[in-house]
Amino acid sequence: MSDTIADLRAKCPVVHCLTNYVTVNDVANAILAIGGSPTMADALEEVSDILDISNALVINIGTLNSYVIDSMLAAGRSANEKGVPVVLDPVGASASQLRKDTVKRLLEEVKFSVIRGNLSEISYIAGIDAVMRGVDSGLDENAVDAVAVAKKVSESTGAVVVITGRIDTIAYGNRVARVSSGTAAMSKVTGTGCMLTGIIGAFIGAYSDPFIAAASAVGAMGAAGLRAYEKAGEVGTGSFHIAIIDQLSQMDDVILQAEGGIEYVS
Amino acid sequence: MSDTIADLRAKCPVVHCLTNYVTVNDVANAILAIGGSPTMADALEEVSDILDISNALVINIGTLNSYVIDSMLAAGRSANEKGVPVVLDPVGASASQLRKDTVKRLLEEVKFSVIRGNLSEISYIAGIDAVMRGVDSGLDENAVDAVAVAKKVSESTGAVVVITGRIDTIAYGNRVARVSSGTAAMSKVTGTGCMLTGIIGAFIGAYSDPFIAAASAVGAMGAAGLRAYEKAGEVGTGSFHIAIIDQLSQMDDVILQAEGGIEYVS
Amino acid sequence: MSDTIADLRAKCPVVHCLTNYVTVNDVANAILAIGGSPTMADALEEVSDILDISNALVINIGTLNSYVIDSMLAAGRSANEKGVPVVLDPVGASASQLRKDTVKRLLEEVKFSVIRGNLSEISYIAGIDAVMRGVDSGLDENAVDAVAVAKKVSESTGAVVVITGRIDTIAYGNRVARVSSGTAAMSKVTGTGCMLTGIIGAFIGAYSDPFIAAASAVGAMGAAGLRAYEKAGEVGTGSFHIAIIDQLSQMDDVILQAEGGIEYVS
Repeated sequence: MSDTIADLRAKCPVVHCLTNYVTVNDVANAILAIGGSPTMADALEEVSDILDISNALVINIGTLNSYVIDSMLAAGRSANEKGVPVVLDPVGASASQLRKDTVKRLLEEVKFSVIRGNLSEISYIAGIDAVMRGVDSGLDENAVDAVAVAKKVSESTGAVVVITGRIDTIAYGNRVARVSSGTAAMSKVTGTGCMLTGIIGAFIGAYSDPFIAAASAVGAMGAAGLRAYEKAGEVGTGSFHIAIIDQLSQMDDVILQAEGGIEYVS
Repeated sequence: MSDTIADLRAKCPVVHCLTNYVTVNDVANAILAIGGSPTMADALEEVSDILDISNALVINIGTLNSYVIDSMLAAGRSANEKGVPVVLDPVGASASQLRKDTVKRLLEEVKFSVIRGNLSEISYIAGIDAVMRGVDSGLDENAVDAVAVAKKVSESTGAVVVITGRIDTIAYGNRVARVSSGTAAMSKVTGTGCMLTGIIGAFIGAYSDPFIAAASAVGAMGAAGLRAYEKAGEVGTGSFHIAIIDQLSQMDDVILQAEGGIEYVS
Repeated sequence: MSDTIADLRAKCPVVHCLTNYVTVNDVANAILAIGGSPTMADALEEVSDILDISNALVINIGTLNSYVIDSMLAAGRSANEKGVPVVLDPVGASASQLRKDTVKRLLEEVKFSVIRGNLSEISYIAGIDAVMRGVDSGLDENAVDAVAVAKKVSESTGAVVVITGRIDTIAYGNRVARVSSGTAAMSKVTGTGCMLTGIIGAFIGAYSDPFIAAASAVGAMGAAGLRAYEKAGEVGTGSFHIAIIDQLSQMDDVILQAEGGIEYVS
């Protein structure tokens, strides 16, 4: 995988996103920056047509309404039929009954290749009660074994499961990776998680192994975040935000390998 | 109130926003920058659940449709029941019959803690005819007494009323404050008013006195705007935009007191 | 037209936009930067009211749903009745049946003053089959005569037709202009096309000749893009994005004439 980023940029996968309106611009620019081509169409009438020209589908439940939930379910099922890999970002999974019901339906009706969330969100899917604090993680990372949670959800869903936190965890069956790059400051910019999920879509649209694709995406986002923080962290969160996109656009395989912080544990 | 910003950052209030899709990303990042935690869920089915974990609700009518109007009314009523303070931004209040009707229903059905708008918007609520120019203020600030307008609307609604302009006015019953910070250049970046309304939500989610909370928020936004303009005003409005978020994230009580420009008149 | 930008800034046309939620913030900031006043209301119930205070209408189909399609059709017809010029951006025109049907209905029911798209989108309108690659152009620019395509669509619609690409083409009946400014790097920032369409709305809201208005807008965007790339291109696409807005806000008639790259061919 020494040419991961170079290959992605050469392939330029089309990533179809049904995502929230808070961070949609950042998700599109992050996908462009890493070398993919984003499309954001979420009309029920066209999700299947758009999937015919897409290499991956990203479903992010950050902002929901009955209209877009129908589109998400239809897009997910259609992607499964067409063999397009699907990534889920269960934003605030347990913060409302609507989100709980939506995540349940999505997991029942759609087969996901990757599921990415924070520890609260993935723990909810694992059946572990977690107190949500808004859309942020309310779980004490020390009190819960992220690897065990990720493995449990991977087993029940068949997906690669990514839990982002101080250390990021990626589990796929018995395969486990940890990623130590990134910085807590990224939580002070809305949408860094959504951007990562979009980038996972780009990687999985370009590579057949979803575990390596997800780990590479997490490492690339972490390395970009660290570099951005060095450049702009002291200026403020507005400049840090822009610098993250800058660093994604400058990402290459040398940086990813040196600074991605990916450790393949098993 | 010498630790206003420090306390807010320690409390990290969750601010639930039903806002427009034009500036939603900036509102979220502004709330994060000042030390709050934003959630942007606007589905009718979940606004009540989200309010259970929220410290303030912000309703901004910048972009309306029948779906979100129902959510706004339900969220406002639910917040009143749960004792969560509600902030209203009546964007373009008189620009269309839909906006007039929506503002009327919101004021009839929801008790607001703070209402923030420009002179045209608040004058409309006061019953003073104003010619809207798009969503910008069409009223001559010299021709209308902002203090009298703010007091009138405060009396009729029971809310703290904030009128932003060259000099900002805050009125709450007989209490009046004026804020001289800020710069007219902020009107060349879309959403600076929306960001301020979001920040008011963060302050009011952290403090029990809505008058001091609103005045502090206006002063913080004004000081951030002035600092941002000094740093980036000559570069262009894109950099100025980013610098406003930067300066909100750098805001502290020393800056607020020295540069906020808040004068408690009565 | 030596005072094009100065006149636009003096007139400050109100540009009513029904646009997509991916790039709406950039469109608003681009319109503000060039000297216009954006409004983004897309509720069916208010589009006619908002048009009463607008100088131009922009319809951008980047993200569609049945609700907003009705608003677009109603707004377009209302603008025609009120004599407000209408600009169309047929984003991804042939990427789905929904888009094909929507473009067809818009062209049947609304008279457009300007239509702007890439070669694939405008070729689709011209009846030339094009393979869409997501929302990006899939046509080989060398294989298709952009001038002939633009003239054909101008003839069938009566609109000024703008095809953006390596060289931009503007056609209006027998009048043709080419614009050589801009840089391919602009395609790595989502929404540069949408921003241009918004700016065309500002120019056409200020000038009676839609051909000169459109060519001036294309030249201004191209000059801003080139200047932005010189300043920030090597930093990354996040900074480049912000620099484009900066340069639009710094645009003046001296820069436009020296660097706009507009050639009036016929």
